[in-house]
Amino acid sequence: MGPRLSGSENSLKAIYWAEKKMKEMGLDSVWLQPVMVPKWERGEIESAEIIYSNKKTRSLSIAALGRSISTPETGITAGIIEINSFREVEKIRDKVKGKIVFINHHFNDGFYDTFDGYNEIGGERFSGPIVCSHAGALAVIIRSITTKYDNVPHVGVMGISDTVKQIPAAAIGLEDADFLSAELKKNPDLKINLILSCHSLPDAQSYNVIGEIKGSDNPEEIITIGGHFDSWDVTEGAHDDGAGCIQSLEVLDLFKRLNIKPKRTIRCVFFINEENGTRGGYEYNQLLLNSKQNHIAAIESDRGAFTPRGFLAEGDTTIIEQLQEFLPALQKTGIEWIKPGFAGVDLYFIKNCKIKIGYVPDWQRYFDYHHSANDKFESVNPREFEAGSAAIAIMTYILSEYL
Amino acid sequence: MGPRLSGSENSLKAIYWAEKKMKEMGLDSVWLQPVMVPKWERGEIESAEIIYSNKKTRSLSIAALGRSISTPETGITAGIIEINSFREVEKIRDKVKGKIVFINHHFNDGFYDTFDGYNEIGGERFSGPIVCSHAGALAVIIRSITTKYDNVPHVGVMGISDTVKQIPAAAIGLEDADFLSAELKKNPDLKINLILSCHSLPDAQSYNVIGEIKGSDNPEEIITIGGHFDSWDVTEGAHDDGAGCIQSLEVLDLFKRLNIKPKRTIRCVFFINEENGTRGGYEYNQLLLNSKQNHIAAIESDRGAFTPRGFLAEGDTTIIEQLQEFLPALQKTGIEWIKPGFAGVDLYFIKNCKIKIGYVPDWQRYFDYHHSANDKFESVNPREFEAGSAAIAIMTYILSEYL
Repeated sequence: MGPRLSGSENSLKAIYWAEKKMKEMGLDSVWLQPVMVPKWERGEIESAEIIYSNKKTRSLSIAALGRSISTPETGITAGIIEINSFREVEKIRDKVKGKIVFINHHFNDGFYDTFDGYNEIGGERFSGPIVCSHAGALAVIIRSITTKYDNVPHVGVMGISDTVKQIPAAAIGLEDADFLSAELKKNPDLKINLILSCHSLPDAQSYNVIGEIKGSDNPEEIITIGGHFDSWDVTEGAHDDGAGCIQSLEVLDLFKRLNIKPKRTIRCVFFINEENGTRGGYEYNQLLLNSKQNHIAAIESDRGAFTPRGFLAEGDTTIIEQLQEFLPALQKTGIEWIKPGFAGVDLYFIKNCKIKIGYVPDWQRYFDYHHSANDKFESVNPREFEAGSAAIAIMTYILSEYL
Repeated sequence: MGPRLSGSENSLKAIYWAEKKMKEMGLDSVWLQPVMVPKWERGEIESAEIIYSNKKTRSLSIAALGRSISTPETGITAGIIEINSFREVEKIRDKVKGKIVFINHHFNDGFYDTFDGYNEIGGERFSGPIVCSHAGALAVIIRSITTKYDNVPHVGVMGISDTVKQIPAAAIGLEDADFLSAELKKNPDLKINLILSCHSLPDAQSYNVIGEIKGSDNPEEIITIGGHFDSWDVTEGAHDDGAGCIQSLEVLDLFKRLNIKPKRTIRCVFFINEENGTRGGYEYNQLLLNSKQNHIAAIESDRGAFTPRGFLAEGDTTIIEQLQEFLPALQKTGIEWIKPGFAGVDLYFIKNCKIKIGYVPDWQRYFDYHHSANDKFESVNPREFEAGSAAIAIMTYILSEYL
């Protein structure tokens, strides 16, 4: 289906495809829940060029961060200062002023869990542009946040502050980040010309796609399973998070194929706009709040389609312990543990349920693909994907029949 | 380094490279243990062509099985009979006689552990050619034993019997296996021309590559860690088993870099000839038997360089339980369990030690690569590989210091 950034034409195509697919599966109810989403477009042109003193140039592999504003048409041409982190800016405000800031924070490969590495430097992308702008920088280029050494930029949302003027911001591929860093060591007075033509448009109409199998005994009790259907515009968004959506749908498909009639209603939700607004998650919670139904539990799959490892759970310890008793069944898909932890961004707003669960596949390869053109359909291994569907299906069954 | 089939020139190049590498690392002793290995060559030509009644032909993607004999130069041209398994042959001996037998046994994707799927049909490659020959077949083509749907043949060793005449045998890619099967349904009288020019040569001189760090307290007590250095000739043998060798060497490198001086001697062995003879494993055991040293334990890594899952152990239950107490340390690399099971082919002959351990990474992707051109250097994820080295290093440390 290709990239599915919120508000894009392609995201709507994908949404209608998903609605049709769910209807063809013969689910008991299928509907689109309207969600107004932010609309941002990359535009036609983005480029960054080193300008040497002899007027020679060398282009760099970059991509604008989500929500970035454009530069003037001829770009911003300025000196460049390399820093390791936005946390250094306060001490060197004078040097940052009037410059393009290059935040060259390396992903720490020393963490066994790559999400720890991601969390450590995610702030560079989110807070970096704000802090640098506050110190008078003209633009920001950040080292892509990835575990894969190549030249593909990895994007993501940049932070915006109500009180600080926004400046253009982009991510740079790792090879060119290292190249730029080496060039700056030889010649600290290098200039860069940065051109971005990205821009925000008025909010656009979009939808969560929802399909459910009605519970046989307790149809008013709802279990939600889902992923987010939007992706960044530079990627097919296979692991992030096409896989999570289709795994959720595959759970319903497995129930139907195995002729399992769940006691409770199992509802699959393809959330829109996780990447740059979480409006889908917000609106879905509004639906729950306005409903007389009883929302029991929710599961999200949004960490890629790798081999199953465990589940993170937000809820009472007693419920988590109750679920842990079912580990022998879950181990047949590779699940080794259930422990307390963050369930998922799309479930964030949901407070009104017994337990929220995040599916955790193996984490070693996720940031090779995350928010980049590397995240292709072919990068998903079918067996790993299906083992994940099976793990979520078993967990769903436990929640429906035993919780 | 490329393919490293036992006895090949390239395998010797790799062996000398490894010896040099170990010496450069500053290990306490590095040596080559002489091993005479079988030598088999694929030869220049291998082809299989469907011959239609109108004389048109269509070539199929095949590769000779290891140890296969050649066909006559013009090949074997004969009718072809498709069966699901060599176990059917006894009942249809008349139909098999004078034919090329196409054993089209599908890999059962229903096993969660792909090694169960492999073990279920591995006999087709090993026993299939013997049983078919005994019934009068002229040659055998087997469906490649793989979890990946493409057209790349996956090879491996064929069985040979002292009492049954050997016939030529090859593996066929999955797409062409399905094509051939479909063609046979339309026209059961199709003929195939099969040409193989593979042949066996006299045994050749080769070596196990051995390097060790001497124990500080008990240098006469040996812990062996290793993988096998030979690969099939159609593949770089990255997962199978270049990775296992280099992980073992990386354990010594980690000990040196962390300045750990182990109590016992840690010995890294690159075994030769696992794929078609296990002569390296046999000779290494001879070395142990003829030595006055005390061999304590052995670890093998020969299941690919995927994310760590567990260890299989052959030894007393009390020792396995003792090791299980260290799981909290091993879990920092992703190891979730230690349980009884087969440690590894190269360790098979070793009886004289307290415990033999097989490192078990995740198994979902292994047979996508196994024994085929798909098993390339680029198919190894560096983080998964290194997590495996770390897991084996911790286990080695436990065996050295606490067993």
